[in-house]
Amino acid sequence: MIIVMERNATPENIKKVTTMLAEHGFKVIEHSGDIHTVIDALGDKTSLTPGRLAALEGVKEVKIIREPFRLASRDRKEEDTVITFPNGVKIGGNNKPVSIIGPCSVDEDLDGLLAVARAGKEMGCEFLRGGAFKPRTSPYEFQGLGEKALKYLQKAKEETGLLIVTELMDSTDLDLVCEYADVIQIGARNSQNFKLLQAVGRTNKPVILKRGPANTIREFLMSAEHIMYQGNENVILCERGIRTFDSTYTRNTMDIASIPVIKKYSHLPIIADPSHGTGQRYLIEPLSKAALIAGADGIMIEVHHDPENALSDGKQSLSIPMFKDIITRINTLTGRMHYEKTCLSANLD
Amino acid sequence: MIIVMERNATPENIKKVTTMLAEHGFKVIEHSGDIHTVIDALGDKTSLTPGRLAALEGVKEVKIIREPFRLASRDRKEEDTVITFPNGVKIGGNNKPVSIIGPCSVDEDLDGLLAVARAGKEMGCEFLRGGAFKPRTSPYEFQGLGEKALKYLQKAKEETGLLIVTELMDSTDLDLVCEYADVIQIGARNSQNFKLLQAVGRTNKPVILKRGPANTIREFLMSAEHIMYQGNENVILCERGIRTFDSTYTRNTMDIASIPVIKKYSHLPIIADPSHGTGQRYLIEPLSKAALIAGADGIMIEVHHDPENALSDGKQSLSIPMFKDIITRINTLTGRMHYEKTCLSANLD
Amino acid sequence: MIIVMERNATPENIKKVTTMLAEHGFKVIEHSGDIHTVIDALGDKTSLTPGRLAALEGVKEVKIIREPFRLASRDRKEEDTVITFPNGVKIGGNNKPVSIIGPCSVDEDLDGLLAVARAGKEMGCEFLRGGAFKPRTSPYEFQGLGEKALKYLQKAKEETGLLIVTELMDSTDLDLVCEYADVIQIGARNSQNFKLLQAVGRTNKPVILKRGPANTIREFLMSAEHIMYQGNENVILCERGIRTFDSTYTRNTMDIASIPVIKKYSHLPIIADPSHGTGQRYLIEPLSKAALIAGADGIMIEVHHDPENALSDGKQSLSIPMFKDIITRINTLTGRMHYEKTCLSANLD
Amino acid sequence: MIIVMERNATPENIKKVTTMLAEHGFKVIEHSGDIHTVIDALGDKTSLTPGRLAALEGVKEVKIIREPFRLASRDRKEEDTVITFPNGVKIGGNNKPVSIIGPCSVDEDLDGLLAVARAGKEMGCEFLRGGAFKPRTSPYEFQGLGEKALKYLQKAKEETGLLIVTELMDSTDLDLVCEYADVIQIGARNSQNFKLLQAVGRTNKPVILKRGPANTIREFLMSAEHIMYQGNENVILCERGIRTFDSTYTRNTMDIASIPVIKKYSHLPIIADPSHGTGQRYLIEPLSKAALIAGADGIMIEVHHDPENALSDGKQSLSIPMFKDIITRINTLTGRMHYEKTCLSANLD
Repeated sequence: MIIVMERNATPENIKKVTTMLAEHGFKVIEHSGDIHTVIDALGDKTSLTPGRLAALEGVKEVKIIREPFRLASRDRKEEDTVITFPNGVKIGGNNKPVSIIGPCSVDEDLDGLLAVARAGKEMGCEFLRGGAFKPRTSPYEFQGLGEKALKYLQKAKEETGLLIVTELMDSTDLDLVCEYADVIQIGARNSQNFKLLQAVGRTNKPVILKRGPANTIREFLMSAEHIMYQGNENVILCERGIRTFDSTYTRNTMDIASIPVIKKYSHLPIIADPSHGTGQRYLIEPLSKAALIAGADGIMIEVHHDPENALSDGKQSLSIPMFKDIITRINTLTGRMHYEKTCLSANLD
Repeated sequence: MIIVMERNATPENIKKVTTMLAEHGFKVIEHSGDIHTVIDALGDKTSLTPGRLAALEGVKEVKIIREPFRLASRDRKEEDTVITFPNGVKIGGNNKPVSIIGPCSVDEDLDGLLAVARAGKEMGCEFLRGGAFKPRTSPYEFQGLGEKALKYLQKAKEETGLLIVTELMDSTDLDLVCEYADVIQIGARNSQNFKLLQAVGRTNKPVILKRGPANTIREFLMSAEHIMYQGNENVILCERGIRTFDSTYTRNTMDIASIPVIKKYSHLPIIADPSHGTGQRYLIEPLSKAALIAGADGIMIEVHHDPENALSDGKQSLSIPMFKDIITRINTLTGRMHYEKTCLSANLD
Repeated sequence: MIIVMERNATPENIKKVTTMLAEHGFKVIEHSGDIHTVIDALGDKTSLTPGRLAALEGVKEVKIIREPFRLASRDRKEEDTVITFPNGVKIGGNNKPVSIIGPCSVDEDLDGLLAVARAGKEMGCEFLRGGAFKPRTSPYEFQGLGEKALKYLQKAKEETGLLIVTELMDSTDLDLVCEYADVIQIGARNSQNFKLLQAVGRTNKPVILKRGPANTIREFLMSAEHIMYQGNENVILCERGIRTFDSTYTRNTMDIASIPVIKKYSHLPIIADPSHGTGQRYLIEPLSKAALIAGADGIMIEVHHDPENALSDGKQSLSIPMFKDIITRINTLTGRMHYEKTCLSANLD
Repeated sequence: MIIVMERNATPENIKKVTTMLAEHGFKVIEHSGDIHTVIDALGDKTSLTPGRLAALEGVKEVKIIREPFRLASRDRKEEDTVITFPNGVKIGGNNKPVSIIGPCSVDEDLDGLLAVARAGKEMGCEFLRGGAFKPRTSPYEFQGLGEKALKYLQKAKEETGLLIVTELMDSTDLDLVCEYADVIQIGARNSQNFKLLQAVGRTNKPVILKRGPANTIREFLMSAEHIMYQGNENVILCERGIRTFDSTYTRNTMDIASIPVIKKYSHLPIIADPSHGTGQRYLIEPLSKAALIAGADGIMIEVHHDPENALSDGKQSLSIPMFKDIITRINTLTGRMHYEKTCLSANLD
């Protein structure tokens, strides 16, 4: 860490900083510039956080040198994390990008869900997603079917072999969701619900962690750190768009650059969700391709057997025929991706 | 609602929209412009949401006329909501703005907490705040003392009579927190944790709901709506800064205008938290005053008996002497506020 | 337009709105809902702007139906605009995406510039870019060589045949820049310098218009409209990243979705600038590919013969060997792009 | 400056950095941490910018210690800058905050303008503002009357003695505007039009510099630096709202905290413009008061004799009676402000 003192900091202020640093085992070097005194703290201790130092009188700011995420960092683990499922499906590293498809929320129409799952299977997808518990901005909107939805997903899995991805909204539902899900999804609005992150961190289920709409890349990786800190290293990050000043034509702004940035700083796999990232059907194909060619380890897209009657997110859901059409071209792209990915990796740093 | 069709929408697309609207009891009026067909849907039904209509083929966008929050809206309830506590303290309406003070998190030093509480009492504050469960971006930081902290707050209340405000992070702690707290705080990062909102909505405890750093004013009021929809109308909104592109000198950007905007659209009381809103001690006085003169029903500020050794948010915490100094001038201002508030109300609309 | 009245609007307020609309030739339809009166104004007149109506007493808001850009709109011109240069190079439509390369600013080293131009020629690029006048945040940084830089670009053009792109910062330099440039660039910070837009609008030089870092897509197209309104329809849009809350790892956030969005709403060509969009060398390859696969008509990337000694933007500049390496893979991608673009177009709407 | 090297930086990379620093006269200290090598560069040279260092291979980032603005910095000049006009009006320091009022744009109705000016004079305002050249997002909107407007402002000045504030949009109009204006305004969209900043920097007219909607506080001060660097130190900063994700109820988000932040880091006066900052009449009173109590040296508000027929910004313009009503209460507040300001200053550390 580097501690920059205010221009009018007193010798006592400076002394207090250097003493606190020394007590925590840092090597301390102090320089006095024309305006500011600067204190370098060498050592890598997590026992004294930058916020503690910033609180001392006369401290202007504390600049960090090392990223605050440790478990998620590529500094700790050079090779890509690959998550392997019992059926042999793998996410991350040089593996073919995966496809996760399905409705935003599971509704009463089991046949519809089965139709989507069969289409996914036919087109080579690996995962079926569907919400049983739905976070909705409005209490007047559909909140999900709960366990019934989980049972429907189970049926689809039994028939097609697709692995199940479903969202956990509250730690009280953890056991129930674990019983059915192959991957637990943590939604964007819960990305800093630290109690929930800790709860899934104590399981060993793979977790898809969505980036919060106002989370920086660093905070996103710190949320992963919370999960990993509890012992669960099976974290799959998911870029799903951030909130910016422009939401006239798209629901969020997809931060495609976050994919190669995260590949550089972390060993964790990262997928993209262009359905939520854009909120528009016609943008799913170009943004899926953009994410994949930028290095994403998979895509998650909303497909509904009857989007016009979907109880949530119909606007951004593909119908089955649209999905088949688009995924065909995406599969063509990912068929050529191994070569591309290798090249990409070669250019990092 | 107004449904704008795409320029190439077919008569079948238009028919599907008008039929769905009619089925839900809307009166429908259709206009064909040079480029777009526009459908006016008259009536006020919550059974058909804009998102459902947006999913229909050929729909460009759905524009809402009426605000989606209903219980929180001034359209429903013209007069200000005033929340009254057993000891006679009131928040909202033309009542004197309240002061909520205390440390970010309660630490082991009970005497320190008592010193803060006594100072608050002495200076005319009504509430003591302190965290027992702390949401922290990093797992390497102090996470709160849990029930022990609640017991400490209880002691401070017994001695000073200050009412207790403390944060609930997880619905499993609801009963515990309710036992000690006079007001439950929902933190900014849980502002769209809908399960948690519903849980506090099923109690009748007053709730301080913080604005999420990426929440629009409309979403903020929709989060209040979630609580109210479960039956608890004792919601106190709290502006605590939003995330913008500039965080060099302040932690967040306080949206002072949100205070009179919310006063116009909602009957709920709203307070301001300049400690989190700015993250800087020297900004607490000017931003507290700005919030109050713009119409806030109270302020919440962090005070710690020893900010340099606070385990969280020391940088933005006032020491007891600084607090006394600043609150004196703030009290002078609020002493003159009744006149100002009346004038403000007179100018709304 | 749709005019939503305040809930307490008087009959006189409403009358004033309908009268003003009628005077400007709109057909007017008025509905009274439970809460709000809504007035539909049918017709497409530019003589009465939404802002004028919004100023009337009792008006809550004015919602637009038709996009405010007309000349730039696909509603007016269905087919893609293609800009053709005297040497046969084309930008837009189904043409192969172009490559625009060169240093941020032209410095004293003519040989270096020639080396970059030759490398560009060798790799199949069409344009050489280089700044003669540099907008710099700090007055302490290099501000450009002025006409000398233009003469250097001229020499590079004479030798290699690459077309010249250079930025105009002030209308007083218009004639000078027009003398040397094949394409005038309007920088991001001048994207709403309307006097400058009008000045280039009165020439017939092709213009690369960069998106301002805080401009919505609609405002971006309105800036193009300012140029076109003066008679110059040769506008090439350029996505170069927007300002968001996260600038830790990238200088801006590239809004890749803006590319297919603009393709849907406008007939103008759009290129991408990942050098400014990301500010990081290692992100240029993945973001160039992402932009192209999402439909961009070209890319603009910074290449310097000696980035470590560049007087501006060295961090994001590629050296000549890095450039050759990356452009080889990008050319492989664009070689397959015709098929992709056709598919993309087929999915718009 | 502090230069943080990439974890895989080579000794040659490090050598290149230390050599370049030494050549520019910096004292260099190098530390090797577990992960990163860090180089401290002591000295205060403007000849080597952080951007130049960042371009060197193996450099992860360059952290600045000292603010890049020098002329505008309080480090250079401890006491507040006060700008004094020939008629004795002063802006800045402990002087009473000024009021700048008038229409967004001057239209054909000279009598209307005179009525506004007389009302301003009557209520104790010091400046009349009015646009002769109008930056408009749309080419279909009123662009200003040009010199005729300047002559109208001149007449109002002759009658009332109010000083004239008007906007300069293009350096070609500089002499014309200087002839009539007492203060030149640089609009928000030209805040980084560096050629224009330099042009006004070469005059000695006081300049009101508006903050660009996407400018950080640091960039805002760097724009002031551009003006000052040319020799004109009479710069008045103006907070007028920034662009954030929420523009449903307000046009921009006023960053009230920027006022005390700028007071801490700069000696320049700063005023606030709640008309553009909020875009809503009913917010002008609370936000004016908030800005003033937070330390602003003045306010600029839009007043039109007939807002319903204003050709620009009518929605946010006050009518003359509304203006008189509001300014009366604002004057009551500023009458008490000297005491408040002194207290505020006392708390800046």
